[in-house]
Amino acid sequence: MGFISGRYAPYLLMFLGLATSWVTDAASPLPSWRDDGAKARIVEFVKQVTREGSDSFVPPGERIAVFDNDGTLWSEKPMYFQMLYTADQVKRLFPEHPEWKTQQPFASILNGNLLSLLAQGSPGLEKMLTATHAGMSTDEFQRSVAHWIASAKNPVTGMFYRKMVFQPMLELLVYLRANGFKTYIVSGGGVDFLRVFSSSLYGIPPEQVIGSRLKARYKSRDGHPAIVKTDELAFLTDKQGKPLAINEFIGRRPVFAAGNSDGDLQMLEWTTSAAGPRFGMLIHHTDASREWAYDKKSDVGRLDKALKAAKPNGWLVVDMANDWRQVYPPEKSRGLTQGLVFPQPPAYQD
Amino acid sequence: MGFISGRYAPYLLMFLGLATSWVTDAASPLPSWRDDGAKARIVEFVKQVTREGSDSFVPPGERIAVFDNDGTLWSEKPMYFQMLYTADQVKRLFPEHPEWKTQQPFASILNGNLLSLLAQGSPGLEKMLTATHAGMSTDEFQRSVAHWIASAKNPVTGMFYRKMVFQPMLELLVYLRANGFKTYIVSGGGVDFLRVFSSSLYGIPPEQVIGSRLKARYKSRDGHPAIVKTDELAFLTDKQGKPLAINEFIGRRPVFAAGNSDGDLQMLEWTTSAAGPRFGMLIHHTDASREWAYDKKSDVGRLDKALKAAKPNGWLVVDMANDWRQVYPPEKSRGLTQGLVFPQPPAYQD
Repeated sequence: MGFISGRYAPYLLMFLGLATSWVTDAASPLPSWRDDGAKARIVEFVKQVTREGSDSFVPPGERIAVFDNDGTLWSEKPMYFQMLYTADQVKRLFPEHPEWKTQQPFASILNGNLLSLLAQGSPGLEKMLTATHAGMSTDEFQRSVAHWIASAKNPVTGMFYRKMVFQPMLELLVYLRANGFKTYIVSGGGVDFLRVFSSSLYGIPPEQVIGSRLKARYKSRDGHPAIVKTDELAFLTDKQGKPLAINEFIGRRPVFAAGNSDGDLQMLEWTTSAAGPRFGMLIHHTDASREWAYDKKSDVGRLDKALKAAKPNGWLVVDMANDWRQVYPPEKSRGLTQGLVFPQPPAYQD
Repeated sequence: MGFISGRYAPYLLMFLGLATSWVTDAASPLPSWRDDGAKARIVEFVKQVTREGSDSFVPPGERIAVFDNDGTLWSEKPMYFQMLYTADQVKRLFPEHPEWKTQQPFASILNGNLLSLLAQGSPGLEKMLTATHAGMSTDEFQRSVAHWIASAKNPVTGMFYRKMVFQPMLELLVYLRANGFKTYIVSGGGVDFLRVFSSSLYGIPPEQVIGSRLKARYKSRDGHPAIVKTDELAFLTDKQGKPLAINEFIGRRPVFAAGNSDGDLQMLEWTTSAAGPRFGMLIHHTDASREWAYDKKSDVGRLDKALKAAKPNGWLVVDMANDWRQVYPPEKSRGLTQGLVFPQPPAYQD
């Protein structure tokens, strides 16, 4: 267990949860969303599924909402934030691993060429996860991520990564939960990485985070057991891996899914192709002045097939530039991330 | 979506949840537990972790409680109930699979020799899961299990399987939840099997059920996707598989674990070996008159190593004959299972 403040972080979060309850005021939910279009569709859907006695009513237990993380709940430029975290770690560990200088994906990272890392696809991602997870104990890893999320800044915006969450999406999470939804993250990123800060940033507890993971072994000596990660990928939660992981972890089909890239296509397809009321949402990054503008030509968060599939499937395409009054939480916001200390995470593993 | 009554089952459950709230009356929680010994230790532990400001206080978000199913939440004799379900299915499907007559584990089932099936260990269990899961669509499978749990009776007691849940454990689940715990099932049994009735029997939603599972594939044709089980085991949630699955699914260490056999040893070890207040509990089947009496010599639910480990680890050993006023819910009980219809399960997969 870390600092006492870490122990009480969930409580602090509950308090902030209360503080943000203004967001769910029935008179004006989702204040950072412009009033027409996207917002109206979301509010109408939530009214539909919560209207008791109607055909479209969904019992609270079945109100499962799943969210991609990178590009959906926070930004993903100039590169997925976990890769930027990893780049820092690889540089830090490089003195002990001189062989990385000529080994991929480490060479790409050390040369600052993260796009070439991306081009290596899953094998590169797997090695990246391995290098940052298998190399240290989970306890060390959690401290490292907690330190990073508390202090590291995005090289392009100069903002803390933790301040690059989307205010309209924080409001959406709170709004859905206030209406009986259980909110999940389903990310291609590493689950152990996300679980360190999912509660603090999004109010989503570790057990509602689904992500890519390495195989692990259980070792016990005289009642002192440890779970040790191997360097073998157990599951990559991207593309068809998303509905498969949802089925494995949650065991029921969501009624609400939000993503922003082709990696989310199958998750949205799986969510919205069943009978009954269903909601699919794509965040379209159209805002070069406040965030970034990119879609089918981007190496990070490419949105092409999923965008084409939006219309025939009836998915809401959120136009960031037009639909959002603001992108990031204002400096003096009462949002989820405001005022939080990021100490050692709760010791949920070791 | 099945009958309308299936759609409303969660609501019905919520209502029954309210109806059973008498169980959590602070003056007399756990009425089916005798007042001394085991009950006193449980109540004292719950007081400790919920006492704000004390050193032993555990924030609600970290109050994770995990329960084995077979032999812990319901009986497991003369054989794990899923095996008895499977035996019925194998017999039903036999006309289409004459080759089973000489193939294990089917031959054992067809000969009524379930103990020989047990002796085949994991490979036998894997084939059993395969035969009952991979052979039909998940939709068919769910209907089949729902029908079985509604109508099938135990060959020894003549009771409905759904009436062979332990009343003291139902009360314990309700008591823990009323005190801010999130309750999970972590069973060696098949997760798809358990998820059909976990809400109805125990008030535990599908997403809080962790169990053995087959690998699956995602197939999509023109936006009509399906998740299809393969015949390859993805994970067996027994022994060290239990803490590994807890770490994978929940991502934090439980503070409370209950089991009844050597298959639960590592789960209890993992739960109770961390710092802070922890509770490990073993159900010792000592009651030949009201249930069964067995431990280290039993083929089903063998309890040997875990029983020896109880004392050095400070685990509570529940003596069923002495600690429980009653074993099963009384006929006119207001318990969780009473009065429930078991129609088609919610269509959480297809």
